[in-house]
Amino acid sequence: MAIAVVPPKKRDAQTKIAKRWVFLFDEIDTVQEMVEGSWDKVRSLLGGKGAGLGDMTRAKVPVPPGFTVTTEACNAYLAAKGKFPENMWEQVLESLKEVEKKAGKSFGDVKNPLLVSVRSGAKFSMPGMMDTVLNLGLNDAIAEGMVKLTGDERFVYDAYRRLVQMFGSVVMGIDDEPFEDYLTEVKRERGVKSDVELKAEDWKKVTREFEKIFRKETGEDFPQDPYRQLELAVEAVFKSWNGKRAVDYRNAANIPHNLGTAVNVQTMVFGNMGDQSGTGVAFTRNPATGQKKLFGDFLMNAQGEDVVAGIRTPVPIAELERENAEIYAQFVDIANKLERHYRNMQDVEFTIERGKLWMLQTRDGKRTARSAVRIAVDMEQEKLISKQEAVQRVTPQHVIQLLHPQFDDVAKQEAKKMGRMVATGVNASPGAAVGVAAFDADLAEKWGKAKRSVIMVRPETKPDDVHGMLASRGILTSRGGATSHAAVVARQFGVPCVCGAEALEIDIRKRQLTVGGVVIHEGDTISIDGSTGEVFIGEIERIEPEFAHETYLRTLLAWADEFRELGIYANADYPVDARRAREYGAQGVGLCRTEHMFFQEERLPIVQAMILSEPGSEEEAVHLEKLRHFQHDDFYGIFKAMDGYPVIIRLLDPPLHEFMPDHEQLAMRAAGLRLMGDRPNELTRVEELMTAVEGLREFNPMLGLRGVRLGIVRPAISAMQVSALFEAACQLKREGVDVHPEIMVAVTSSASEVKFMRELIEKVANEIMEQFGCKVEYKVGTMIELPRAALIADQMAQYSEFFSFGTNDLTQTTFGISRDDAEGKFLLHYVEHGFLPENPFQVIDEDGVGALIEVAVQKGRKARPNLEVGICGEHGGDPKSIHFCQKAGLNYVSCSPFRVPVARLAAAHAALEGKRS
Amino acid sequence: MAIAVVPPKKRDAQTKIAKRWVFLFDEIDTVQEMVEGSWDKVRSLLGGKGAGLGDMTRAKVPVPPGFTVTTEACNAYLAAKGKFPENMWEQVLESLKEVEKKAGKSFGDVKNPLLVSVRSGAKFSMPGMMDTVLNLGLNDAIAEGMVKLTGDERFVYDAYRRLVQMFGSVVMGIDDEPFEDYLTEVKRERGVKSDVELKAEDWKKVTREFEKIFRKETGEDFPQDPYRQLELAVEAVFKSWNGKRAVDYRNAANIPHNLGTAVNVQTMVFGNMGDQSGTGVAFTRNPATGQKKLFGDFLMNAQGEDVVAGIRTPVPIAELERENAEIYAQFVDIANKLERHYRNMQDVEFTIERGKLWMLQTRDGKRTARSAVRIAVDMEQEKLISKQEAVQRVTPQHVIQLLHPQFDDVAKQEAKKMGRMVATGVNASPGAAVGVAAFDADLAEKWGKAKRSVIMVRPETKPDDVHGMLASRGILTSRGGATSHAAVVARQFGVPCVCGAEALEIDIRKRQLTVGGVVIHEGDTISIDGSTGEVFIGEIERIEPEFAHETYLRTLLAWADEFRELGIYANADYPVDARRAREYGAQGVGLCRTEHMFFQEERLPIVQAMILSEPGSEEEAVHLEKLRHFQHDDFYGIFKAMDGYPVIIRLLDPPLHEFMPDHEQLAMRAAGLRLMGDRPNELTRVEELMTAVEGLREFNPMLGLRGVRLGIVRPAISAMQVSALFEAACQLKREGVDVHPEIMVAVTSSASEVKFMRELIEKVANEIMEQFGCKVEYKVGTMIELPRAALIADQMAQYSEFFSFGTNDLTQTTFGISRDDAEGKFLLHYVEHGFLPENPFQVIDEDGVGALIEVAVQKGRKARPNLEVGICGEHGGDPKSIHFCQKAGLNYVSCSPFRVPVARLAAAHAALEGKRS
Repeated sequence: MAIAVVPPKKRDAQTKIAKRWVFLFDEIDTVQEMVEGSWDKVRSLLGGKGAGLGDMTRAKVPVPPGFTVTTEACNAYLAAKGKFPENMWEQVLESLKEVEKKAGKSFGDVKNPLLVSVRSGAKFSMPGMMDTVLNLGLNDAIAEGMVKLTGDERFVYDAYRRLVQMFGSVVMGIDDEPFEDYLTEVKRERGVKSDVELKAEDWKKVTREFEKIFRKETGEDFPQDPYRQLELAVEAVFKSWNGKRAVDYRNAANIPHNLGTAVNVQTMVFGNMGDQSGTGVAFTRNPATGQKKLFGDFLMNAQGEDVVAGIRTPVPIAELERENAEIYAQFVDIANKLERHYRNMQDVEFTIERGKLWMLQTRDGKRTARSAVRIAVDMEQEKLISKQEAVQRVTPQHVIQLLHPQFDDVAKQEAKKMGRMVATGVNASPGAAVGVAAFDADLAEKWGKAKRSVIMVRPETKPDDVHGMLASRGILTSRGGATSHAAVVARQFGVPCVCGAEALEIDIRKRQLTVGGVVIHEGDTISIDGSTGEVFIGEIERIEPEFAHETYLRTLLAWADEFRELGIYANADYPVDARRAREYGAQGVGLCRTEHMFFQEERLPIVQAMILSEPGSEEEAVHLEKLRHFQHDDFYGIFKAMDGYPVIIRLLDPPLHEFMPDHEQLAMRAAGLRLMGDRPNELTRVEELMTAVEGLREFNPMLGLRGVRLGIVRPAISAMQVSALFEAACQLKREGVDVHPEIMVAVTSSASEVKFMRELIEKVANEIMEQFGCKVEYKVGTMIELPRAALIADQMAQYSEFFSFGTNDLTQTTFGISRDDAEGKFLLHYVEHGFLPENPFQVIDEDGVGALIEVAVQKGRKARPNLEVGICGEHGGDPKSIHFCQKAGLNYVSCSPFRVPVARLAAAHAALEGKRS
Repeated sequence: MAIAVVPPKKRDAQTKIAKRWVFLFDEIDTVQEMVEGSWDKVRSLLGGKGAGLGDMTRAKVPVPPGFTVTTEACNAYLAAKGKFPENMWEQVLESLKEVEKKAGKSFGDVKNPLLVSVRSGAKFSMPGMMDTVLNLGLNDAIAEGMVKLTGDERFVYDAYRRLVQMFGSVVMGIDDEPFEDYLTEVKRERGVKSDVELKAEDWKKVTREFEKIFRKETGEDFPQDPYRQLELAVEAVFKSWNGKRAVDYRNAANIPHNLGTAVNVQTMVFGNMGDQSGTGVAFTRNPATGQKKLFGDFLMNAQGEDVVAGIRTPVPIAELERENAEIYAQFVDIANKLERHYRNMQDVEFTIERGKLWMLQTRDGKRTARSAVRIAVDMEQEKLISKQEAVQRVTPQHVIQLLHPQFDDVAKQEAKKMGRMVATGVNASPGAAVGVAAFDADLAEKWGKAKRSVIMVRPETKPDDVHGMLASRGILTSRGGATSHAAVVARQFGVPCVCGAEALEIDIRKRQLTVGGVVIHEGDTISIDGSTGEVFIGEIERIEPEFAHETYLRTLLAWADEFRELGIYANADYPVDARRAREYGAQGVGLCRTEHMFFQEERLPIVQAMILSEPGSEEEAVHLEKLRHFQHDDFYGIFKAMDGYPVIIRLLDPPLHEFMPDHEQLAMRAAGLRLMGDRPNELTRVEELMTAVEGLREFNPMLGLRGVRLGIVRPAISAMQVSALFEAACQLKREGVDVHPEIMVAVTSSASEVKFMRELIEKVANEIMEQFGCKVEYKVGTMIELPRAALIADQMAQYSEFFSFGTNDLTQTTFGISRDDAEGKFLLHYVEHGFLPENPFQVIDEDGVGALIEVAVQKGRKARPNLEVGICGEHGGDPKSIHFCQKAGLNYVSCSPFRVPVARLAAAHAALEGKRS
């Protein structure tokens, strides 16, 4: 090798000339030494693909020889606004010489030409996002030389036409359409359906025509100098790092923008050199179910892009055994070796060239949530990974996906009977999705932003479509298999997907699809089942998944529980919620909102009468007594369901007018009655009601008479609630149930408010307990949901045994943003245009809201060291926010019952990764 | 003297017996030594009155001999739940012996009896609040002895009946009514009008009857033992410290409750020993105007209580010269001496006993705002006090009172012509008041709390009435002069008062007053002018005072400006406000709200059309261009008025729906049109408008699409405002006006918002300045009115050259309280019941809102050391809040133009008293 390998330590001290921009695949040890052994740094420098190719080469896996241009070179190129860094090109040429030696062929040599592929490879895999050029090194003369060498004119011009198109589109930015149109025309002329049926002369003709298209579109000839091709291709890969779709993808997948991409230049091997050649992709385990069995597709006499692009529908990998048992055995052996080597399920690309197996790539395989969980648990049991690794390999997003709603089987059977199931495709990404059909990505995105549920429908998807896919509830294609672009992206982002549903005739221009004589127009509702591949017309009813049956997930979450430090509570207003919360693993109820109970049909008239009665009057007392019986039963049910666990009951929170009819509607009704003139009593009633509602009306109800303010102005309501609560608790205690009520005051901003309510609660509690002759241990605490409460937390803690951060309201008041008003009107605009990094109602805003939480925890604990602190806003179920809660030293998070499994896992991750503050 | 005087230093080491509870007036030097010279501590120990009597005695002023029982004794008595501290009574008796020696009379001696007065005296003067007993030491036998000694039976029994009544009411708690009723009856029997006309036998009879009443009401005889009288009287004074009216007064005047009161026992001198005797009260300067001239009243042959209680209408002090020139000269001399001694205007009480002048009390005189200002300025010019003292002697409350609205002279003349002026009384406390007549204190208080303007109308007022007086806008009495209870209290609290309007026949039972045949019922509106004493039926229009004519105040405020460190800006939306602000001494406009300009009649339709047009459309541009011309004129006017001073212009703040018609009204109108069915076009228009308004509607508009959010979603509006602003500025610059625009962004919660607006402002500003070919220096800054903005102030300061705390909204969001909704519904309840110490919308809440301000100042200055920081909420004009602003290190406060003088003074006080943080 001509390049002097400079030992890493001395490198920095050398001149610029010594900077290494290029490494051969078999120099992997040298690279790893340079970065002091860190594999992560190897991946940063060479990209995931380059590092993998080097690693495979080192592991003696048959990899076509090649070299990697580093990510540093890419960054230097971009920083210099399109100039290769000094000496890079020379290193490329020298490395190419080395590859020529290994391949026994020469780049640009008419007699024995070396062809190469040029591929991007960033640190993190970004499927379809970066550009690839195959068969580079061909020109008119070399093509003819190769025909002589191989005697296979068809193969050579198939390869050459591919190069011209790929180079044209990827390097020169020509639209694919003129190429594809011409190809379609040729096939129609020849009366054939698939590319494989075309003959040598056809491909030759296609190549010439492609060169014309190239000239027409670019104003230049297709470059005949192979080195110029290489130079332009490398530049194109570098530039594509900042292409729109790459940036979009990184934004969506949270990948930093400053990593850069490496370029891999590798000897071409050909899957399209006749029937003894082929190409395929495979996963070492099933990426949908996690089953331990090779999973993938291959195509004989085809190049790799044909498999992934979904243009031809490929054959399952298992069939390779019949095709060539020896190669299959070798492949299985290599796959197992790679899985053991990387201790993870692998996604491999291979090519068979005239009966010889080449591995082109390996990487950790994308997988569905279900698969991720099963693989993690299985691998732990196979002793391949530890429990901690298993827990860390499953993301909260996986759990969310796994517990997505599913179609109701009964409803599905009904739909089938009625003929509403119109097609079946590949079950590419599991989950049940219902939405309106949108036939392009832009529309899907637009509708998605307008909060419509969308199913994006395409013949096949391309990287340009990702923004629409991300905005959709489901993806449906008529072409491509389980490894097609649509399938891979859908699985990664947890979007249900059915692909290759070939019965569908999708007409993009007419914006409709036809299947079995039925026409589905854009905007019509359809349902797809990504777990079964079924496609339905109209909406199919969905049900919550059966957590009890998710054995793998339950095992994994049990392990997560061993690692986490945060308690996981659930927000539950009814006994049925409380039971579900327990089933999902909640250790308490962090928020029981009593107002929901008030809204029930049979109670609302009593609630309204109570509101309208004079505070402190006999009448008020009568209505409250009625409500007390209802409340008693509510509390009884919840306490019973949470036997042994704490239940935090929040006293009435919303402003009273929420329980009253709408003023405008009353006004309209009064106007109507006045005109009719025949029901004076009813008119009087409505007018009186209007006056009452008018009196309760508020300009900013969120900041009005609610929570503790209501408790102070109308203490009889609170007393009723506390009385019902303690009666239920005492009764259950008699029945042997272990009750732990915690009573929570809402919307507090002064310690005096908590003090008042505490005294009221203690008084009523003592009365009831005396009456029952029993003692129930209980706590009194406060929500911290207003900035002032956080700022004076030391004062609040004087009267509070626990704090519960109401992060919804705390976010609203800290930002001065009413969520109801903001999301449609400006908040989405803010997130989209970067005014805010995320929607603060989904992820805790650490700078503002988080700062208040930290102040409150610190001041509160200082005043009362054993203060119990938790969070009960929607953020309680958000993984990022849970990390914050861990950092802030909270005792627990409380979230909706459905979010409990997610929270359990996120809390484990937080504990494993984070430090407690 | 029998009591061993223990040197102060050794005192603490002595036994309890040595504790001194009682001091003779002439022991003042001893007391002052004991407390190491501190006059404040002397006053704490002896009370203001006791200290003053001692001080006068020391200054050789003729003071009847006596002694003071200390406040410590009172506190010890109250702490021991009604037991005199050990040795106190013995010290009283010993001191009494010393007084007997000085007076040449003996307590309880039938032949030559010493009578004493027993008076309370707390550290801070509380007129009428504490109880007094005169003529103590009389009994049946001593009365007869005195008759023999003086030969004046009338005088003796007049004194005796007073003792029985006072002792009965003050010590034993008997209602005054039976005494007063009997006295009225006797006068009617005798056919006389005033007490003076009653003869010796009448008083004897009255005395006997009073003793019967005493027995009937208490079940005991009037105590004949003078020592028992003294003991009970001292106890009564002690107890009265915790009486309801004393506690109320202290609450109102912010006097601590733990000071206790001293008791002064003093030799009686008699103003009612015939025509050579008399009594009076006087101020060394006019307490209403501040004029340097003795001011007061006296009555010959009367006791002190007759003057103050307003039962007989007294004679001006100047007339004493005619009555007795020698005494008058002596009195003038003493008054001058006292004023020089105390370096303040004095309020003195005197008695002439058979031609000998005795001074009974001196204290700093209560005064009106006008008087306070003039006296402070005059005394500085007389070199009696320093400028700083002058500034500190005037309170912000004084300035507020002085700049109270006054009646419009033209309106008054009109009213007089129409016969609406019904009476004239004493101009006891200046100011113009309009309100409904309330005939008792409880009703006045009730109505006052319900936000009705009340004039409390009484024949005369008593200490029990203070709660009603404080809740009233004005006080009107038919009896009593400028030193009556009503007058003194009204002046102290700045309530306009007309007293002694004798033409009024007030019938408390019928709850009406009759004057000149007109009957005014309770609840009728009346107007009183406390500066002229005029009383009107109905409402007289008020106008703002002419600051330009307030020469003394202007002088004082100019001195205040020398001391203060805070800049004083004004909130001004129009040129007229800006001009007034300058006149009042503002050094800039701290807040110019541009939205008020949008509401003007001719603009509103354009504003509405602009709102309804598509953002970014041609149509929007057309409407905005129209508005730009209006705005240009607004800004031109304000900048011109503030030539040389900064003007902070806030870009559009309120949500757009505030400019639109009400949805419910539109709905009703649409319903009406639908029923009529004859104006389909109008119906369509209304329905379209409804849809538009519906789209803009918000649940919590305070937290909605407003301020910077509007600027981001509809940047064309902001661009229009900035363009108009810079056009006006450039034009004025050409005209030689010195403009300093500062552009302020509102409702910000993220730095990105400020950055966006800053860029927009800079872009537009550069365009306009280029167009005009001129350069205007300007600043861009942000309101800090949301908790998050304060918490991330370091980030905000990156893009802000100034912060302006919008404490109204900051208080609303920090507390989560909507002011509009809260004040009526629960906030008053909160303040009244002690849930909050004060209304946080009036006085800055230091714990919560203040904490955020401090964080923001600190973080903001850290990020930008020369950051300009001010406040522009309503708190900017509140004295307490200004003290906070000084402490927090703000650069300026901005308040309404009318509040500017108050703010100038408060800022000077804050600088003199406080330390900068």
